[in-house]
Amino acid sequence: MLDTVVAIPVTPFAPDGGVDWDAHAALIGRLVAHGISTVTVNGNTGEFYALTPSEARRAVESAVAAVAAAGGGAEVVVGVGLDLPGATAAARHAAGAGAGALMIHQPVHPYRSAEGWIDYHRAIADAAPGLGVVLYVRDERIGGAEIRALADRCPNLIGVKYAVPDPVRFASVARDTRSDRLGWVAGLAELSAPGYWAAGATGFTSGLVNVVPELSLALLFALRDGDYPEAMRIWESARGFEELRAADAAADNVSVVKEALAQLGLCDRAVRPPSRLLPGPVRARIAESLADWQKEGWL
Amino acid sequence: MLDTVVAIPVTPFAPDGGVDWDAHAALIGRLVAHGISTVTVNGNTGEFYALTPSEARRAVESAVAAVAAAGGGAEVVVGVGLDLPGATAAARHAAGAGAGALMIHQPVHPYRSAEGWIDYHRAIADAAPGLGVVLYVRDERIGGAEIRALADRCPNLIGVKYAVPDPVRFASVARDTRSDRLGWVAGLAELSAPGYWAAGATGFTSGLVNVVPELSLALLFALRDGDYPEAMRIWESARGFEELRAADAAADNVSVVKEALAQLGLCDRAVRPPSRLLPGPVRARIAESLADWQKEGWL
Repeated sequence: MLDTVVAIPVTPFAPDGGVDWDAHAALIGRLVAHGISTVTVNGNTGEFYALTPSEARRAVESAVAAVAAAGGGAEVVVGVGLDLPGATAAARHAAGAGAGALMIHQPVHPYRSAEGWIDYHRAIADAAPGLGVVLYVRDERIGGAEIRALADRCPNLIGVKYAVPDPVRFASVARDTRSDRLGWVAGLAELSAPGYWAAGATGFTSGLVNVVPELSLALLFALRDGDYPEAMRIWESARGFEELRAADAAADNVSVVKEALAQLGLCDRAVRPPSRLLPGPVRARIAESLADWQKEGWL
Repeated sequence: MLDTVVAIPVTPFAPDGGVDWDAHAALIGRLVAHGISTVTVNGNTGEFYALTPSEARRAVESAVAAVAAAGGGAEVVVGVGLDLPGATAAARHAAGAGAGALMIHQPVHPYRSAEGWIDYHRAIADAAPGLGVVLYVRDERIGGAEIRALADRCPNLIGVKYAVPDPVRFASVARDTRSDRLGWVAGLAELSAPGYWAAGATGFTSGLVNVVPELSLALLFALRDGDYPEAMRIWESARGFEELRAADAAADNVSVVKEALAQLGLCDRAVRPPSRLLPGPVRARIAESLADWQKEGWL
């Protein structure tokens, strides 16, 4: 489930401010039709922190139904987080709705101890014992010892999405965890994938995949083949677009993806605050990326 | 409302895991009895990110009732945040419950643009036009231009709680905002208060005030008098305890306060994950702080 491109679909919005569920299902169906086998709803690219709890629940149901309508063949991973009562309720909902796994967002609580970090994740994992659990680690203070302690207590822990921007720390944490059971996912998408793959990752997350699934999959196949020169050629095709997403501390991370999808006619460009609609010059650069990808055969 | 010690009360928990509302009211009543005039419920010291939305609403009602029972004389400020629909609903609830102002937590959304930051805060401020609004700024990317733009659009914006640990940046942002209307609150509590006061703050937030309100107020009075040597003598009395709260990236920030309150018999020491109960050696150091404060006359 994790040794692949872990796609994080966007949550498209409707003109009335709600979620456009038809577009949500269509975008997930498009991913599955292109061969994507793991889809994480309520991730950061899905604007999890701008959704209400009821919208987040419906996103799970929408994704499960969209995968089934596409003939199956993909697992739905569900992002959960925030306060513990809410997170455990969301975990139980995901299990009942037919999801395959949970991804536990890094706690937003500002005061995190190692013991409390373990207790938080264990409570959520225990709420859905039938689901695999993936940790989303964005805190460089979390090391192999904490992850190992959690793995020893949670038989359903299956992997770690590691998103600290430091491949040395990634390699150290993954090796210090000393577990053969866990999959390690490069959590900072295509541009970081080769460096993390070299250090032991066997999958990577992607928001870009919403736009050009063939490109993300080509990168996966190159990395699986150990063909790093080919991976870096594909990397260069992703670079300009991903740099727009990373600019200004990732302010436009999702806005850039939705703008591209809007230009392709696949959904509206609307985002919720504190994200923003993009100014004209950035929209023009996205149009150039799309034109380049068409020339290169990715679209 | 902001030119004072802005107290952030803890949210005490009961043995069944819920909130101990009697203790919540009693702790707020104790603050008011000591002369505290501004109380912010659902702040970080109140473990906002570990509360359910319904618990957060009840904390507002409990605080308003506790202030009234203590004879009035204090304003209740209400922390709101997370997704925008939830934040605007919480703002409307606070207005109906008799609160005096809102404190808008920094958005937890990872992708924040300047325009979207303004839109997010404006939507919440507009939801409760009768309440004052305080910004809680923890992001060094937010500058005077953004705050000024928001102040121009939101007549109910009354102040900024500034919590970036850099007094040069604080001074720059406060001066660049060019507004006589806004109060500036040092958002990193007693140990940062003198440095921020020297640069223009006229109030400071406090979690320590839960334990030793007389100490926090003495620091306020020394700063108001411009008596920095006296302020630094009081600072030294707060130092050991506040350093325990700051250790390990503030992992035990609230746990230390609750442990002290438990040793004083004022509430239970329980915290929610990802915070933790403290190990014996830290508890012993807290007992030493309490003994020192008794000797010094703060308790």
